Amino acid sequence: MSSVQKGGMFQRVALIGIGLIGSSISHAMRRGGLAGSIVGHAKSVATRDTALRLGLISTAYASAAEAVAGADLVILCVPVGACGAIAAEIGPHLAKGAIVTDVGSVKGAIVRDVGPHLPAGVHFVPGHPIAGTEYSGPESGFASLFDNRWCVLTPPPETDPAATAKLKALWEAMGSNVEVMTAEHHDMVLAITSHVPHLIAFNIVNTAAHLERVTDSEVIKFSAGGFRDFTRIAASDPTMWRDVFLNNKEAVLEMLGRFTEDLIHLQRAIRYGEADTLFRLFGEAREVRKGVIQAGQDTAAPNFGREAGADARGKAK
Amino acid sequence: MSSVQKGGMFQRVALIGIGLIGSSISHAMRRGGLAGSIVGHAKSVATRDTALRLGLISTAYASAAEAVAGADLVILCVPVGACGAIAAEIGPHLAKGAIVTDVGSVKGAIVRDVGPHLPAGVHFVPGHPIAGTEYSGPESGFASLFDNRWCVLTPPPETDPAATAKLKALWEAMGSNVEVMTAEHHDMVLAITSHVPHLIAFNIVNTAAHLERVTDSEVIKFSAGGFRDFTRIAASDPTMWRDVFLNNKEAVLEMLGRFTEDLIHLQRAIRYGEADTLFRLFGEAREVRKGVIQAGQDTAAPNFGREAGADARGKAK
Repeated sequence: MSSVQKGGMFQRVALIGIGLIGSSISHAMRRGGLAGSIVGHAKSVATRDTALRLGLISTAYASAAEAVAGADLVILCVPVGACGAIAAEIGPHLAKGAIVTDVGSVKGAIVRDVGPHLPAGVHFVPGHPIAGTEYSGPESGFASLFDNRWCVLTPPPETDPAATAKLKALWEAMGSNVEVMTAEHHDMVLAITSHVPHLIAFNIVNTAAHLERVTDSEVIKFSAGGFRDFTRIAASDPTMWRDVFLNNKEAVLEMLGRFTEDLIHLQRAIRYGEADTLFRLFGEAREVRKGVIQAGQDTAAPNFGREAGADARGKAK
Repeated sequence: MSSVQKGGMFQRVALIGIGLIGSSISHAMRRGGLAGSIVGHAKSVATRDTALRLGLISTAYASAAEAVAGADLVILCVPVGACGAIAAEIGPHLAKGAIVTDVGSVKGAIVRDVGPHLPAGVHFVPGHPIAGTEYSGPESGFASLFDNRWCVLTPPPETDPAATAKLKALWEAMGSNVEVMTAEHHDMVLAITSHVPHLIAFNIVNTAAHLERVTDSEVIKFSAGGFRDFTRIAASDPTMWRDVFLNNKEAVLEMLGRFTEDLIHLQRAIRYGEADTLFRLFGEAREVRKGVIQAGQDTAAPNFGREAGADARGKAK
């Protein structure tokens, strides 16, 4: 991690939205001494109060327009569907030379909805830190969320490369690895590595919950056979995910089509008892896991390191 | 946990197969002092040597028939597809009054394949501990694997209730909660809570790996957005899972049909931009997670408690 002078890479950072990602950015910036000051706006009074109480921001503003005044870095940390309206609101209040970025899971829609509202002289560098947990809100953030995770930046062609480089250095100082690509490519890659996985997790949880011959308590009792891992993913913020699917429709529908095609191929192998096909396909999937572990993108400890019964009913180990 | 006298609930336990589950049973039995002696058979010499070296068994036998001689408890810990042939081999060598059980993820096929080979006077109580990790082999087991997990017993109607009660007490002494149900109901419940989740995990991993416009390294780099959780599930033993799908075909195909129907409903909502439908369905899925946490079937720590970067490239936290 690069060493950074106290006082920071940016003088005044404005966080618009202070949930899991916004609060984690504050923690990570303060850990690294990367910002002179961090101010913010959140729609709800309760979130603003919590953010002040936790020291996530030094000043809370009731409007986004007030929050961005004088900021040299503005980070939109709200659901993708809310970014366009906020950009329209803050556009006239942005300082000349400021960098505007975001953390949304979809990038094409951000370029489309945010770009047109930004005045000349403001640098637009959309971003997406690929990190998160199933929790949301200002109390769920922590400083190490981005450590060794990847952050993708998708600057439009006209963006000043110096602004992209400065934001890249910030994310690296917050612990991330950074890759720059087009918004279109980002949206396709994330459709398969994040959006479709979330959709099928939401889906299997609901399919199970609606089975009339299996009681709810059975679904939960016997969840350790695999189902519980899907419930964790399906516990993510519904507003954020609704916006992801509405705003990355084409790529998600394409990947879903491939997923279903492959699933029906597997289903047919089961129906006709094709043992060799099943064994081969399962073995191939196992290999991908090794790459994830080698790349440091997950723990190699069994079951994510959770021990059976560790948090269960206070039972002694 | 019930307190058990040293010397054990069973005098001589024979483990047939010593992988993740067989080795964990040995650890859990020795933790609780539940067996006078534990002996075993594994097909491979290497596994038998490892099991002796780790103290999982006191004697290793090259054949299952030798291993079961004189045992008052025989536990089949091999893939479901291998149980029928082993039952045929050990049938003539079983001690009168012995209990024969197994740990397979499918129960109807076990009743069908094992039952006919067991002589009169031997008690048949099929079982399924709903616990596991993505690792396999005799070195992957640990004593707490079954703590606060559920174990399902599916005795056929003619089984002596006293034998079922004795096996139930053993599983409870190994840390489990125990439920008794029919093999048919077990197979339907597990199809949705375990078998179909594994199948869709195997499937999405392979769909992602075969995308020609996304490189393998991108799939792995950006896996923290959800995909990595699926790779863990998809790293499970291919032989075991091949046998599960071949032997629980009807229930799996039925549940897959429902899953696909629900997925196409979601897909349609995305295509037509039905924001309210998506929000509602995602919110419902989130609720199920609360039940899993309350039932002690998973940790409430974010991201299963894994910290970002904890095991990554030796980077300081």
